[in-house]
Amino acid sequence: MKETKKKLEELGNKVLKDIERGENPNIDIPLRNLSNVKYDEKTGMITIGDKSAKRYFFNVAHAKKFMQSLLVAAFTKELTNQNLHTSLRDLYYALKRTMPNSQENTFNEQSESDPIIVDLEVALDILREQLHLNADVRGRAVGNVIIKDREDTVDLSKLGSGGLAIPSNVEEIEFKKVNVDFILVIEKNAAFESLHELKFWKKHNCLIITTAGQAARGSRRFIQRLANEFKLPVYVLTDLDAYGLYIYSVIKRGSISLSHVSDRLGTPGAKFLGLTMDDIDKYKLQNFTIKAEENDIKRAQEMLNYKWFQKPEWQRQLKALIRKKIKAELEALSGRGLKFMAETYLPEKLKNQDFLD
Amino acid sequence: MKETKKKLEELGNKVLKDIERGENPNIDIPLRNLSNVKYDEKTGMITIGDKSAKRYFFNVAHAKKFMQSLLVAAFTKELTNQNLHTSLRDLYYALKRTMPNSQENTFNEQSESDPIIVDLEVALDILREQLHLNADVRGRAVGNVIIKDREDTVDLSKLGSGGLAIPSNVEEIEFKKVNVDFILVIEKNAAFESLHELKFWKKHNCLIITTAGQAARGSRRFIQRLANEFKLPVYVLTDLDAYGLYIYSVIKRGSISLSHVSDRLGTPGAKFLGLTMDDIDKYKLQNFTIKAEENDIKRAQEMLNYKWFQKPEWQRQLKALIRKKIKAELEALSGRGLKFMAETYLPEKLKNQDFLD
Repeated sequence: MKETKKKLEELGNKVLKDIERGENPNIDIPLRNLSNVKYDEKTGMITIGDKSAKRYFFNVAHAKKFMQSLLVAAFTKELTNQNLHTSLRDLYYALKRTMPNSQENTFNEQSESDPIIVDLEVALDILREQLHLNADVRGRAVGNVIIKDREDTVDLSKLGSGGLAIPSNVEEIEFKKVNVDFILVIEKNAAFESLHELKFWKKHNCLIITTAGQAARGSRRFIQRLANEFKLPVYVLTDLDAYGLYIYSVIKRGSISLSHVSDRLGTPGAKFLGLTMDDIDKYKLQNFTIKAEENDIKRAQEMLNYKWFQKPEWQRQLKALIRKKIKAELEALSGRGLKFMAETYLPEKLKNQDFLD
Repeated sequence: MKETKKKLEELGNKVLKDIERGENPNIDIPLRNLSNVKYDEKTGMITIGDKSAKRYFFNVAHAKKFMQSLLVAAFTKELTNQNLHTSLRDLYYALKRTMPNSQENTFNEQSESDPIIVDLEVALDILREQLHLNADVRGRAVGNVIIKDREDTVDLSKLGSGGLAIPSNVEEIEFKKVNVDFILVIEKNAAFESLHELKFWKKHNCLIITTAGQAARGSRRFIQRLANEFKLPVYVLTDLDAYGLYIYSVIKRGSISLSHVSDRLGTPGAKFLGLTMDDIDKYKLQNFTIKAEENDIKRAQEMLNYKWFQKPEWQRQLKALIRKKIKAELEALSGRGLKFMAETYLPEKLKNQDFLD
């Protein structure tokens, strides 16, 4: 919180100084277009490059955005002062007004305020959540972990069938006790519920997390914090289709659209546990595959070219998917029995360290 | 659970008896088409009528569905025997196979097994959740309530910023302590998070629940159980648009597509707290409204004709929405300040009992 305030104050002081010096007030904002996004081999993450552009007050093309940037910065400063959190949409409404003696609105649509928030994230090298702006919530977790969140101490092994609702903002969560050997991240809630019911997390001493689809920012940050702060291996279990593989990729490498925060949200050590094309034969899932859609094939072809999917094992998987034109869901494992995933598939893969990296 | 087993056994015994008597084995399934769905003024809910149809084994048009019905019934019997739960999709995979000496699959698509499950729900007058089939999860809750879920005792006032992740299946939850005066159901997670942060539930001694969009079955059942078992008033806070009003309507009256389980999921005593067309003027939200989409107008026109929206107050609201062609979101209240909803809007509406029924 101190870091956030300091950075926001530095931004304000910088603009003030420009004015005092009689210079054209400006803010320097790193570029977020594709030309400035790259894969960093060293960190194993998608990151933003060095190019940036200045946004000036005295410039007809910049003036409105400059004003909007300062409005948003001042508002988030107020949020941190009051220790209040809010959503992107609430921020838009809170700042929307008609400027005095004009017909001009500060913001006409949320599509104007959202990118300004990302600008601030990039310019200040800070997370939206640290600016007290909450993202969507999604994701649940169960295991031998105790956290402190606000005034409450919450034991993630004692939350009934639902598990922990991972908050949208996990910046201020403290981990009081983390007694697990690894983290298993699961794309689908149904698979998570089944593993929870069969006490998989107890038998294998792990934390199980469902992202319930593409991982929300809160879940990604939660996984990263646990992996980094407690040196925990992270294994990702998704469907075998373009969407599932991309969920894994985003958890591990970050995403192109949020490349500026990969270092805060990505977990480069994460490994892919399944489903793989090999699993289909190995675990006799042939009768439970689905025809791959055109979209799956197209995405797999794109992934073939991504720098971070160049390892021979990934190339082999992707090419097999394209050639055989099939995909498989986690639920396919239920074709072999409702306990097959918890009692055969996962224990075998874990024992044999049968992961893709 | 006993009730479920008994009903499934009765179904099996009935078919067995048909066979022993040399009759054409059959199951009686109430019709779910629109002609058999009606609004019941007495209960205030959308319910299913008395028409039903028999599904026969010896009938070319029925035979496959008859076989599928018995497969699903036997599978859910096995689930209850083993005390295992699963999802609709897992059930589909678990039952999918090619029948001996044929090219015929038991099920080709999940779209074949889903309606069979609903058939069973209707025929046995039982909830899918009681058949151990879990629905989607969505929804969170915070307040002075203690539940027992599986082996865990969970205090809903001590779960940090996330609150309780309402499970997909709340049938076996026990309410150990319910120390609240009412339930406030909120369509949007952002509004829920703000009320939680400002400790609204503590100050007003209520349970706050977010449905995070259209309420999942687990959330609807959770609300109903609390309302019925503890005689609690339920107030619903949604956006002022067709989607929001329908969320309220479904919580209160049930839905047309799930009319056969309204009595297990609906809370007819629920009242609508807002947003209303009157609120826009009363709380000076004029600058924060949005132009209503064609879809909103069309839905509002349909609702004008629904039997359960005939009260003059609802007619006035719907007609005003159609005439003025505007809608408003909960976040519009942030236009009046981030604490306006928690400290002005809600306390006033609650104090004045300013609800629609």
